[in-house]
Amino acid sequence: MDAMTDEIATLRGRYAGGAAYLDGEFMPLAEAKIPVTHWGYRRSDVTYDVVGVRDGRFFRLDDHIRRFRNSMTALHMEPPEGDAEIRDILMKLVLMADVRDAYVSMECLRASPAPGALRHPASCRSYLSCSAVPWISVVSPEMEVRGMHLMIPKVKRIPPSSFDPRVKNFHWGDLTEGMFEAKEAGADFAVLTDETGNVTEGPGFNVFCIVNGRVITPARGGLDGITRLSVFELCEELGLPLEIRDVTVEEFVNADEIFACTTAGGIMPATRIDGRILGNDVPGPISMQLKETFWQKRAEGWHGTEVL
Amino acid sequence: MDAMTDEIATLRGRYAGGAAYLDGEFMPLAEAKIPVTHWGYRRSDVTYDVVGVRDGRFFRLDDHIRRFRNSMTALHMEPPEGDAEIRDILMKLVLMADVRDAYVSMECLRASPAPGALRHPASCRSYLSCSAVPWISVVSPEMEVRGMHLMIPKVKRIPPSSFDPRVKNFHWGDLTEGMFEAKEAGADFAVLTDETGNVTEGPGFNVFCIVNGRVITPARGGLDGITRLSVFELCEELGLPLEIRDVTVEEFVNADEIFACTTAGGIMPATRIDGRILGNDVPGPISMQLKETFWQKRAEGWHGTEVL
Ligand SMILES: Cc1ncc(COP(=O)(O)O)c(C=O)c1O
Ligand SMILES: Cc1ncc(COP(=O)(O)O)c(C=O)c1O
Repeated sequence: MDAMTDEIATLRGRYAGGAAYLDGEFMPLAEAKIPVTHWGYRRSDVTYDVVGVRDGRFFRLDDHIRRFRNSMTALHMEPPEGDAEIRDILMKLVLMADVRDAYVSMECLRASPAPGALRHPASCRSYLSCSAVPWISVVSPEMEVRGMHLMIPKVKRIPPSSFDPRVKNFHWGDLTEGMFEAKEAGADFAVLTDETGNVTEGPGFNVFCIVNGRVITPARGGLDGITRLSVFELCEELGLPLEIRDVTVEEFVNADEIFACTTAGGIMPATRIDGRILGNDVPGPISMQLKETFWQKRAEGWHGTEVL
Repeated sequence: MDAMTDEIATLRGRYAGGAAYLDGEFMPLAEAKIPVTHWGYRRSDVTYDVVGVRDGRFFRLDDHIRRFRNSMTALHMEPPEGDAEIRDILMKLVLMADVRDAYVSMECLRASPAPGALRHPASCRSYLSCSAVPWISVVSPEMEVRGMHLMIPKVKRIPPSSFDPRVKNFHWGDLTEGMFEAKEAGADFAVLTDETGNVTEGPGFNVFCIVNGRVITPARGGLDGITRLSVFELCEELGLPLEIRDVTVEEFVNADEIFACTTAGGIMPATRIDGRILGNDVPGPISMQLKETFWQKRAEGWHGTEVL
């Protein structure tokens, strides 16, 4: 352990700004690159997870590693590293990057078939790509104060029958198109619906709406977000009635309050949707209660794991 | 021109096996790598095209560059290189790789936003990644002789409402899952249907079926393949009636003949689908007529552009 601590101290200078672990080796983030021939890039044959560190503490580290493992299994991937090793790698990356607030990514991707091997994903080995960088938030400091401006785009979320959204993935073409539609409409972000007009999620976040004091979130069509799970726990604790069910776009845009939530931002109230102004253009009271309780509990070490 | 020829001759040794052009520079393929932070990888925010070279001649080079340009425009991407420059780069890559039969890829991907810039794809520059490698075929020599064994998987093709399949893309999660279902079923490849039970395409190829002498292909849900377009022209020339319309999975699996087609393989007859044996387990006569005419015309220089 002391040897490792020494090694980390020596490396910190080079690794500040971002540390990476790629295919078995540690390196500065700027050196972490994927061969253009690998199917992780060429076929987006990759799954990932992102865990946050605030004030030197991971939030729900084991929940993220568990979800990552489930995603890998769903894609028939098995990298050489086990869960305990992944945990150690992430710890080491945060120490190397030398940041108290970090955005920590773990990815597993397929290489390409050896020459002569059958051109099938089962012929490809899978390997890890992990990194720790200074904290990134989906929302800018300005949006954090004024609330997010959302819109409903024409593009639909990729349906679960084509790709299971609970397997965290880089198939972001629909979310990216949504971001262009949002920009065109003067909004910050798009919230995508499915083919039947139910709300799903946005580029990097789950959504909730609040109607007559009930806190409501879509049951399907999006990621089983870990921040969303934390909101479930907060509702329980604060005695707020929670509903996990289909949410039509009509109900959503006409709700009393709306908020988004994600590892990279926490709980983020919205103040506009499709041009409609919610609650006099200021974040709603229940959203703010959840947001404040979330950060207060985090500061107290809720679901935290010390980086060491 | 002579200077370039000299340069290429010097480089051939290093570049044999694969030559790449990445973000403005030529390099051996093994050195072409994408930063893990770039959205081309992290969000599969990339489009591509593949053109084939046989016997030192590109096939429909300008059609591929035109489709590539349309794809880039659809994704709001504009790399520094114009079409004429892309054409020159591809030529040079084939010369460097020193192969008469090549698989030539052109890709355009987004980098990541500069630190401090809005985290929006519109904040990212786009750049090219191109390569030439020795010819790759979707089918093995064995499949080429015995015919492909196909199956219809449970997973559905990503619908056009989520991502336009005419914009050639790396969102292959559905196609990859189809390949695992095919393996499980003892088949070579999956042909995916859409939510309504119409046939779309497979992992890297379009499909046709032949019923009572009529050559039929799905009108939508897949790529507007350039080999598919070539089949249209062959049907015209050979006087075969062609139908471009919705094809139900029932009609498809019960057809007299089936074939797949792609740049990386040409016209590839199938002999089994979902366990059903077509035409006594040998490639059907109309499929073979199309296949033989295709390669004969290619040998004669049809739609060809000499590499020089
Ligand atoms: C598409 C999508 N939905 C939802 C989320 C939120 O999930 P979590 O709270 O686990 O970070 C993310 C996180 O990146 C995401 O990418
Ligand atoms: C999904 C898909 N469909 C169809 C095709 C065939 O298109 P083309 O004949 O233009 O090569 C490809 C080629 O790679 C493909 O990836």
